[in-house]
Amino acid sequence: MSHLNNQDALKAAVIIIGNEILSGRTQDTNTQWIAEKLTGNGISLVEVRVVPDIEEKIVAAVHALRSGVDYVFTTGGIGPTHDDITAGSIAAAFDLKLERNEDAYQMLLDNYGDVTPAQAKMAMIPEGAKLIPNPASGAPGFVVENVHVLAGVPGIMRSMMEHVVPTLKSGKVVLSNSVSCPLPESALAEALEALQARYEAIEIGSYPHFRDGSLGLSVVLRGVDEEALREATKELLQIIRDHGSEPGALGLQVAID
Amino acid sequence: MSHLNNQDALKAAVIIIGNEILSGRTQDTNTQWIAEKLTGNGISLVEVRVVPDIEEKIVAAVHALRSGVDYVFTTGGIGPTHDDITAGSIAAAFDLKLERNEDAYQMLLDNYGDVTPAQAKMAMIPEGAKLIPNPASGAPGFVVENVHVLAGVPGIMRSMMEHVVPTLKSGKVVLSNSVSCPLPESALAEALEALQARYEAIEIGSYPHFRDGSLGLSVVLRGVDEEALREATKELLQIIRDHGSEPGALGLQVAID
Repeated sequence: MSHLNNQDALKAAVIIIGNEILSGRTQDTNTQWIAEKLTGNGISLVEVRVVPDIEEKIVAAVHALRSGVDYVFTTGGIGPTHDDITAGSIAAAFDLKLERNEDAYQMLLDNYGDVTPAQAKMAMIPEGAKLIPNPASGAPGFVVENVHVLAGVPGIMRSMMEHVVPTLKSGKVVLSNSVSCPLPESALAEALEALQARYEAIEIGSYPHFRDGSLGLSVVLRGVDEEALREATKELLQIIRDHGSEPGALGLQVAID
Repeated sequence: MSHLNNQDALKAAVIIIGNEILSGRTQDTNTQWIAEKLTGNGISLVEVRVVPDIEEKIVAAVHALRSGVDYVFTTGGIGPTHDDITAGSIAAAFDLKLERNEDAYQMLLDNYGDVTPAQAKMAMIPEGAKLIPNPASGAPGFVVENVHVLAGVPGIMRSMMEHVVPTLKSGKVVLSNSVSCPLPESALAEALEALQARYEAIEIGSYPHFRDGSLGLSVVLRGVDEEALREATKELLQIIRDHGSEPGALGLQVAID
């Protein structure tokens, strides 16, 4: 399989920090939002880890992931309470001092008018980090080398990420065409394998779904080569018809005629 | 922090296998469902990794996670198409032969009546693996040592997991009480830190939310010690009142009176 023949693609990893995700209390939605954002900017998300609020676990994830990718994004754990340990953990991961950042403190002052000792904790940032503004609630995120530290609350994370994205390099955007049909996955398996073999630069994914007791299929074609994507999509439509079915919902970033 | 003083707790890790999660196309919901299921059976989910459909990445995640936990669960990649590489990857991770499993083949026959070559791929299972029945669509999951290989389609994954759970050891169930209030997180930070210090066996999580432009807070107390949980919850309610607010929604697994 080709995996997009895109060795030079920009790569990213996400670290979701939070016991509430691991206990099942909270449905993580940050991963998908960040993934879509990155995909739209030509950056491939290559791994996600969800880790608990334990410093050594956070440090281990940062060390394991950051050297293999262009960017790491963390979400969660930058609030004012005892279980918010991300800033200290990132400082530890980079062997930096955690210190009061005067610009961050000013942001808190601007937002709250007065800063309590608990709020002041949110100005404790690894030395030398660049701040990420937080228009939603004042307390900033920050960047150390290629690690971007974001809030966990989705609305706040998103507002921070909107500031971050323009600062990132952007790669060749991977375009995606999807076609659904009411066939079981196995009916198309051989034809899809042959299609994949003919289009090395296209990544072909086959995703069955199971609704109201019957199986259906979405086939997703992804690639940076618009012409190859168009041609492969046309062939896919023909494959579905050749199997006695009709293509259902189409999601086309590249028009086919 | 105590992290439940629960060194003997049963631990699990999840590996979500799928390019469609990493591209942002699909919102993963399997993690939360499995997490809740495990939590309800006294098994702590300690890490989740989302990895692409690449054998070496799957193998690396299995190797990294399985020795530190009682159970690993993988979801995704066990269908009939070219991008379904989980069975082969698990075989590689354990240095086992991937071979036709006659019981699995029979399950396919029972389900489909006739088995096409593409469908037969779903009977290729690492040698010696135990099968996990799939009442929803026939093709089984399987277990190799402590690694449980499940489908990615949520309805199918769940039906498999319902078979798996009774086969797992179950630990002391971590009980959880949650209390929400309309205060900003920082208002309670010091009181929560002191509460945490008084209740070492309780894990206190503080989760801000941001709706309609204003911040609110959910505080979650978790622990296996019912009496400690009851007392800590009562103190939390008093803390909220002492800060001039009123507790909002309560989610109590342990009643407070």
